[in-house]
Amino acid sequence: MIKILAVNAGSSTLKWKLFQMPRADVIAKGQIERIGFKDARLSITTMRDDFSEELTIKDHQQAVDKLLGILTEYKIVDKLDEIKGVGHRFVNGANHFAKSIVIDDTVLKEMEDLVEFAPLHNPANIMAIKAFRRELPNALSVAVFDTGFHQTIPEENVVYAIPYEYYQKFHVQKFGAHGISYRYVLQRFLKVTECNKENKRVIILHLGSGASVCAIQNGKSLDTSMGFSPVSGIAMQTRSGDVDPSMLIYLEEKLGVNSKSVLKMLNNKSGILGISGVSSDMREIMEIHQKNERADLALRVFVNRIVKYIGAYATELGELDAIVFTGGIGENIPRVRKLICDKLGIFGVKIDNALNEVKAKETKISAMNSNVEVWTIPTNEELMIAEDVEKLYNEKR
Amino acid sequence: MIKILAVNAGSSTLKWKLFQMPRADVIAKGQIERIGFKDARLSITTMRDDFSEELTIKDHQQAVDKLLGILTEYKIVDKLDEIKGVGHRFVNGANHFAKSIVIDDTVLKEMEDLVEFAPLHNPANIMAIKAFRRELPNALSVAVFDTGFHQTIPEENVVYAIPYEYYQKFHVQKFGAHGISYRYVLQRFLKVTECNKENKRVIILHLGSGASVCAIQNGKSLDTSMGFSPVSGIAMQTRSGDVDPSMLIYLEEKLGVNSKSVLKMLNNKSGILGISGVSSDMREIMEIHQKNERADLALRVFVNRIVKYIGAYATELGELDAIVFTGGIGENIPRVRKLICDKLGIFGVKIDNALNEVKAKETKISAMNSNVEVWTIPTNEELMIAEDVEKLYNEKR
Repeated sequence: MIKILAVNAGSSTLKWKLFQMPRADVIAKGQIERIGFKDARLSITTMRDDFSEELTIKDHQQAVDKLLGILTEYKIVDKLDEIKGVGHRFVNGANHFAKSIVIDDTVLKEMEDLVEFAPLHNPANIMAIKAFRRELPNALSVAVFDTGFHQTIPEENVVYAIPYEYYQKFHVQKFGAHGISYRYVLQRFLKVTECNKENKRVIILHLGSGASVCAIQNGKSLDTSMGFSPVSGIAMQTRSGDVDPSMLIYLEEKLGVNSKSVLKMLNNKSGILGISGVSSDMREIMEIHQKNERADLALRVFVNRIVKYIGAYATELGELDAIVFTGGIGENIPRVRKLICDKLGIFGVKIDNALNEVKAKETKISAMNSNVEVWTIPTNEELMIAEDVEKLYNEKR
Repeated sequence: MIKILAVNAGSSTLKWKLFQMPRADVIAKGQIERIGFKDARLSITTMRDDFSEELTIKDHQQAVDKLLGILTEYKIVDKLDEIKGVGHRFVNGANHFAKSIVIDDTVLKEMEDLVEFAPLHNPANIMAIKAFRRELPNALSVAVFDTGFHQTIPEENVVYAIPYEYYQKFHVQKFGAHGISYRYVLQRFLKVTECNKENKRVIILHLGSGASVCAIQNGKSLDTSMGFSPVSGIAMQTRSGDVDPSMLIYLEEKLGVNSKSVLKMLNNKSGILGISGVSSDMREIMEIHQKNERADLALRVFVNRIVKYIGAYATELGELDAIVFTGGIGENIPRVRKLICDKLGIFGVKIDNALNEVKAKETKISAMNSNVEVWTIPTNEELMIAEDVEKLYNEKR
C-alpha cells in the first residue's frame, strides 16, 4: 500500500486528493482557492472531519508549502516520505505528450515550452510541479495530460482548414481536453459492461462547468468538440462554444475593444450565463426556465448543441453502441439527460424515465428497447491520475 | 411574355442573365469582372454567339451603363423599356427581409443600413441597384435576399452562446447564406419527386466555391452551416469554415498582424487552398490527391466536415428523407458525392454508382435499397430571382 497525491493546479487554485493505492481509499482531500489574493481559502476533508480557514497565499509555491505543512500537522501522514508519488494534471501537453510521464528535468523543460497553449493553466501547473519536486524530492513526480487521450484523433479531424504551415509551424490544431475524465469513464464503462473495447463505439458527454463531447472508437478518441482551446465546441457555463470568427472582428468594432477582450468575453461571460443573463449554473436554470424565457433559451441552446455533436459523432463512428453522461451536469441532472436523449430518436435512443432519476451513480439509464445503451458514470479524474502514478511507480521499482 | 434581368453584383463583378418569362428562356447572359481595375473584362453569351472584351470599368455604375449600352447595340433588346423588371441578389438582408421585395426609396434606405453585415458585397449591390433604377426607371426593381430563406430558423439555432445583448443590440446571430439556391433546389426537388412538402425532411448541400449545408423541415430552413458570416460552417475553396476563436488571437501574436488580417486569411487563403497548398479547385484536387498527401488531406477534411454537418442536421430533423447535392462541386463531381454518401451508413444511405456518374442534370442517384433518397439537382439562382420578380410584377399589374 502506498500513498499517492493527485494534484490539479488551476490559475488561482490548488486542488488535491491523497489516495491509499491500490485500494483507492481517499485519505484526505482539499483545495486552496484564490491563490494570489489576500483572502485565499483553504479547505480540507479527512476521514474524520472537515475544516477550512481564510489566509493569505502569495503563489502556488506557498500553497504547496501550506498543504504539506497541514498534512503532517494534522497527522494525515506521519512523515511526508510516506507519499510515494505526486501526479499532476497538466492541461495542455500539445503534441509532445500522449501518455503520462515521469517528470525529470528534461521533461519539465519541454513542459515549460508549452505555456502558450494554455496560458492560464500551464504556468500554475509548472509552479506547483516545481514546488512539489523541491519539497518531496523522493516522491515520483508524474504529469498526466488532459490532452493526451486525444492524440489518437486522425489528421482530418485535427487540422483546421487554414494554411497548413500554421499547423506545422505553430501547432494550430485541435487538442481537445477532458482527456483524463474520458479515459477514466471509458475504463469504468468497459468494466461495468464487460465490453470488449475493440468493437465499441461510444460517445461520452463530459458536462461540467467546462463541457465537451468525445467520440470513441476501439477505445481511442476519434474526435472531440473542444479544439485548439477549451472555448470551442458546445455551449458551457460561461464559455461560448463554437462561434463565427467574423463576429469577433465585428464586436471589436462595435464595442471599441481589442480582440483579446472579445476572447475574454467568450470565455467568461458567454455560454449559459451569457444567454440567460441570470446564472451560469444549470441547476438554477432548471429551476427557473419555465418562467424565464432567456433561461429557457439557454437550456435549449445547451441541449441543441450537444444533440448536434452527438449526431455528427455518431455519423463519424458509423454506428453507435453507447452514450455515457458524466461531469457535474451529466451525473446529477436527470432532466437534462432526458432532454438530450429525447432528441436522439433517429438513432433509436430511448431512456427509461425511472432509471434516469439516478444521481452520481454508475447506472444504465436506457430503456430495454433502446437501440443504444445510455449510461451515467461519475468521473474521477483524481483517481485516474493516482492510478497512472501508481503504474509508473510500480514500473520503476 | 416579359423580359426580366437577374443581377448578381459582387465586390468587383456584375453577373447578369436576361430571361424571357414565364418560359424561362435565357435570351442572353454575361458578366463584367475586375470592376475598378484597368483590365476589367466583359463577356456575353447570346443565343447566337459569345464575345468578350477587355476595358476599363471604374465602378458598378459604369458597369451597368456599359451593359445596358450593349443590350441595345447588339440588338439583344430593341428598347430598354422591354425589360419589365430587374431582380438583384442581395447577400445579407439581416433580420429585415425574409421575402423578396420591390425596392422603393424606403426599402433602399433600409438596405443601405445593412452594409456592415456584408461589407464586401452589400455596397456593390446598392450601387448596382441605384444605377439600374436610374437607367431603367420604368422597370420594377426587386431585391432577392440570400439570407431570406433562413429567417425561419428557430431561435435556439440562431443565437450564439454569447451575451444576449449582442444579439438584441447588434444582431450578432446566424444569418446563413445560399438561401436563393436552397429555395430553387427545394422547389425543383418537390416538383420532380411530386412530394408533399409538409412532411419532408431534406438536407441540401450547396457545394460551390462558397459552400454550405441546410436542414429543411416542412419546406422551411431549420438550420444552416454558415453563420453570422459566410466564413463559418464547412471547409470551402478558400474559406476556413468553423475554427476555434482562440486561434485568431494566437495567430495575431504569432504573425504580428491584427485581427482583420487573420480574418482575411480565413476568407481568402484557407479552406481547400490552405490545406492543399496547391489549388482551391476541387477538380484539380481530385486529379492529384492520390499522389499528393496534402491535396488528399484537403479532400478528406472537405468530406469529413460535410459528413458531420449531415449527421448533426439529420439528428435535428429527427428523420431524413432526402439529401440533395447542388452547386459546382455537388452537380459535377460524382466522386465527391460518393465519398460523402459512403460515410452515411448509419442512416442507411446507399448510392447507385452508375446513376451517380451523372453531371449537371436532375437525377436521383441513390440505390433502390437506400433508406434515404439522394439527388443531384443543378441550382439556378438567376432563375429563382427572375421568378420572384415575375411574381411581384404580376401582383403589381
